[in-house]
Amino acid sequence: MANETNVTWHEHSVSRKEREQLNKHPGCVIWFTGLSACGKSTIANLVDHKLHSRGIHTYVLDGDNIRMGLNAGPGMLKERHGEEFAKRFGIGFSAIDREENIRRIGAVAKLFSEAGLVTLTAFISPYRRDRDAVRASMPAGDFIEVLVDAPLEVCEKRDPKGLYKKARAGELKGFTGIDDPYEAPEKPELVLDAGKKTADALADEVIAYLAKHGKIR
Amino acid sequence: MANETNVTWHEHSVSRKEREQLNKHPGCVIWFTGLSACGKSTIANLVDHKLHSRGIHTYVLDGDNIRMGLNAGPGMLKERHGEEFAKRFGIGFSAIDREENIRRIGAVAKLFSEAGLVTLTAFISPYRRDRDAVRASMPAGDFIEVLVDAPLEVCEKRDPKGLYKKARAGELKGFTGIDDPYEAPEKPELVLDAGKKTADALADEVIAYLAKHGKIR
Repeated sequence: MANETNVTWHEHSVSRKEREQLNKHPGCVIWFTGLSACGKSTIANLVDHKLHSRGIHTYVLDGDNIRMGLNAGPGMLKERHGEEFAKRFGIGFSAIDREENIRRIGAVAKLFSEAGLVTLTAFISPYRRDRDAVRASMPAGDFIEVLVDAPLEVCEKRDPKGLYKKARAGELKGFTGIDDPYEAPEKPELVLDAGKKTADALADEVIAYLAKHGKIR
Repeated sequence: MANETNVTWHEHSVSRKEREQLNKHPGCVIWFTGLSACGKSTIANLVDHKLHSRGIHTYVLDGDNIRMGLNAGPGMLKERHGEEFAKRFGIGFSAIDREENIRRIGAVAKLFSEAGLVTLTAFISPYRRDRDAVRASMPAGDFIEVLVDAPLEVCEKRDPKGLYKKARAGELKGFTGIDDPYEAPEKPELVLDAGKKTADALADEVIAYLAKHGKIR
């Protein structure tokens, strides 16, 4: 390396286009948003499965892999990194914590799309401003916002984790739809009627959208 | 979705193994570490290019795509998210900020490896403890630590961004190798002699390591 003082860093970078050529499809972000228990994760994982079966390179970001690592809460961070660290960087449920939660997920989803993957995210992401900031961070067309639209009553009736019950009892504060607002997107790329249709049918609607818009072959 | 109250979430998840079968190689993290200007990014991007040419699915995490997004500093965050937010979540250069910087990069690298990609990271990552925490977060064999070993004098002589000069002049505080320690790995998977060999030869050493250990075909 002794004579390489003047080389430009990263001159050999593989471009996004080259990564997409290897994958034989473009990268993008499919951003599912909606109330707790509306079906975001179920639908996202079904779409993932269907795309993968077609040989499309995909990845899902959801609570399972984000909250255990990148956006761990103070409790998880405390053990390994100490109290000061956990207090400063742990993600809680205040307004700015939620903002940072979505900001980081958006930044990572962007990296995955630049790597050429069809990237699916499944988070409530209740605030319009936070979702719009993610959209604005990406090239036009990369961010596909999918509203998983189910009435609050339906979601509350499902309540697979008992969260609505806890929120109604006042044991959970700031719960979306109960004592914190859900701001539906004004111009989502796609609206899924998750109060009436099956998850499988809705996953097919997402696939049809992607095919129609040249995101998959 | 009305009758799906009792379904297990994520029952249709695509497994890591299935993603790797599609890619025809396993995912892993190649973690380059070393002094500023030792050649980490140059070598990582060369390895990336060589792997991509062989049809291997890769991605590079480095200062270019991490500092502009996921780990933005207070200055960048302030404009879009306000002062309180920037102060709380912006990544600076204190000890715990550096710890969080590496923690987040490790968490994202782990996600990329789980997506089945050969993931290259190029950060000084000076503290042994922080790198070891990333290693511990992953399955055995996934974390390949590569010490890019060049004498401080050589790096300082290259100084492509003039950072060593600024550090010597006291304009940059806590600069690795000058007034902050670099803790070399005790048992890295690979040591590259970046004081004597060319970046191209060193990239080939990384490729040879991957082939020998079944990470690439």
